[in-house]
Amino acid sequence: MKKFLNSVDTLLDESLRGFAQAHSDIVQFNPQPRFIKRKNPGKAGKVAVISGGGSGHEPLHSGFVGLGMLDAACPGQIFTSPTPDQMLAAAQAVENGGGVLFVVKNYAGDVMNFEIASEMLDCPNSSLLINDDVSLPATHSTGRRGTAGTTVVERIVGAAAENGADLAACKALGERVAHSTASMGVALTSCTVPALGKPTFTLAEDEIEIGVGIHGEAGRERAALTSATEIVERLATTIDDELKPGQNQPVLLHVNGLGATPPIELYLIYDLAYRFWKDRGVAITRSLVGNYTTSLDMAGCSITLTLLDEELIRLWDAPVHTAALRWGC
Amino acid sequence: MKKFLNSVDTLLDESLRGFAQAHSDIVQFNPQPRFIKRKNPGKAGKVAVISGGGSGHEPLHSGFVGLGMLDAACPGQIFTSPTPDQMLAAAQAVENGGGVLFVVKNYAGDVMNFEIASEMLDCPNSSLLINDDVSLPATHSTGRRGTAGTTVVERIVGAAAENGADLAACKALGERVAHSTASMGVALTSCTVPALGKPTFTLAEDEIEIGVGIHGEAGRERAALTSATEIVERLATTIDDELKPGQNQPVLLHVNGLGATPPIELYLIYDLAYRFWKDRGVAITRSLVGNYTTSLDMAGCSITLTLLDEELIRLWDAPVHTAALRWGC
Repeated sequence: MKKFLNSVDTLLDESLRGFAQAHSDIVQFNPQPRFIKRKNPGKAGKVAVISGGGSGHEPLHSGFVGLGMLDAACPGQIFTSPTPDQMLAAAQAVENGGGVLFVVKNYAGDVMNFEIASEMLDCPNSSLLINDDVSLPATHSTGRRGTAGTTVVERIVGAAAENGADLAACKALGERVAHSTASMGVALTSCTVPALGKPTFTLAEDEIEIGVGIHGEAGRERAALTSATEIVERLATTIDDELKPGQNQPVLLHVNGLGATPPIELYLIYDLAYRFWKDRGVAITRSLVGNYTTSLDMAGCSITLTLLDEELIRLWDAPVHTAALRWGC
Repeated sequence: MKKFLNSVDTLLDESLRGFAQAHSDIVQFNPQPRFIKRKNPGKAGKVAVISGGGSGHEPLHSGFVGLGMLDAACPGQIFTSPTPDQMLAAAQAVENGGGVLFVVKNYAGDVMNFEIASEMLDCPNSSLLINDDVSLPATHSTGRRGTAGTTVVERIVGAAAENGADLAACKALGERVAHSTASMGVALTSCTVPALGKPTFTLAEDEIEIGVGIHGEAGRERAALTSATEIVERLATTIDDELKPGQNQPVLLHVNGLGATPPIELYLIYDLAYRFWKDRGVAITRSLVGNYTTSLDMAGCSITLTLLDEELIRLWDAPVHTAALRWGC
């Protein structure tokens, strides 16, 4: 394993301390229990939008804390759910009179721990579940995984909360965006979890994992390495079959890097995905390309499509000021 | 070689087309000869700031085209200088009555080709040379290489040009920033150039390359993989010896990822570098952490320090609207 590291035990805290220092105009780090919160809270009565999950997916979620997106993020150890006490402490720190909405990617540990935190807060039904990964069937036993579509939901719900939408409206909006969003990924290589010290899985030099999860979970199939065009066709067709965007449907196209894939390849993927949907008459109205939901040092990418309307476009474009997304302010 | 690719011959144009489409609110792509230019030119009489170099370092330079930074960027093939006709065409497209300043990283091909373009434009001395890499001695036969400090120079000079500084002032400012900036990098792995199809160099599992260049050039020494703290001490000490920041000297600290190193490690490096200089009484006043000057899929990072003053801080903070850097607008 070749990584910048002092020790596996201290990596997360050292890194979070560095993150908070580098972005001290935007965030604050609470070390015990661990959470990152906005430095400048929103208006009184604002819904507090909180997310969290295992670390190793940065900038998700800590890099999305700030005006117009998250009020707090709870980082677990790498690829490990945060604990309910983190979520509870974060909620108590940022609750501002408008209630709390937890944005939860669909993994068993995250779902359970956010549920416990909801009970401790005496706020049932305060979770918004993200399950955008269409590589698995909707009928899969544990449901679909939450992946790069999370960024889109957190941005749009965060904008609504900043604009004063109440808890029920934020949750309903989040569910609408989540249902309008589909993602699918592909890995060229595994990632290496520091505590494990070796790659999570092995791919031959001519193999790729289609439908890979953001922790290296097996996907739809292991396939031969083929052209970028064929890979994009595979991912985009699955997404298109799910969302069925009509002629002139405005969409957001998000090409997400999983960590080790350079921009020159991500923009190639974007170009191919753009043309895939343009050829079908879909209106690619907003775009996001880069490393947002990563899987440590995995080489690979995912494609996310979200069906938009005027309201969602307006919320996407609203001011956001976080470490990883920033515009309009 | 595992990359998203259709063919080596088409990669650059497909990727640039995707880049320009994804950021069509900011840039336009001219395919023949290749350059990226600002969609909305600045005020008449503004100095046109133009850069370029081999591709494979994205977001440098195309991702820095836009308000408050570059007017145009000329991308060569991967790790290959752009040609004078690209630079000439870019200059003719964006020259706006204030003259042209070429920002040139110190590599023989880039220097020669920008010089030829200057002669073709009949604008001698229109180049600003960037040679921030202190891994080589200042007396090195071809001079020091231009690396991640380029981002800092392009941002600050771009802000001055946007604010109406004339050509002589922009060039003098750029030279001042360049002389106040020092960088040093370290590689954990090689990168793989698509046209070559295999890693540029080989490092053993327990080896790192200290002082690596952004194309994988050999650096100061090949050393044993050691703790992140020791690696940062090595880089930061060399930079500190060069710039000798005094007590309370305001500085910009830029930790740059070379491509495949995830944020959790980059922020660890930032934390260690921050504490290195804080312990010496230096005032880390501005920070930039992320992949800005990359080397394809190389795992590694560099540290850049720039000595600041009130004028440079004001210019750094001025509005910038590019694909890769955006604030204040």
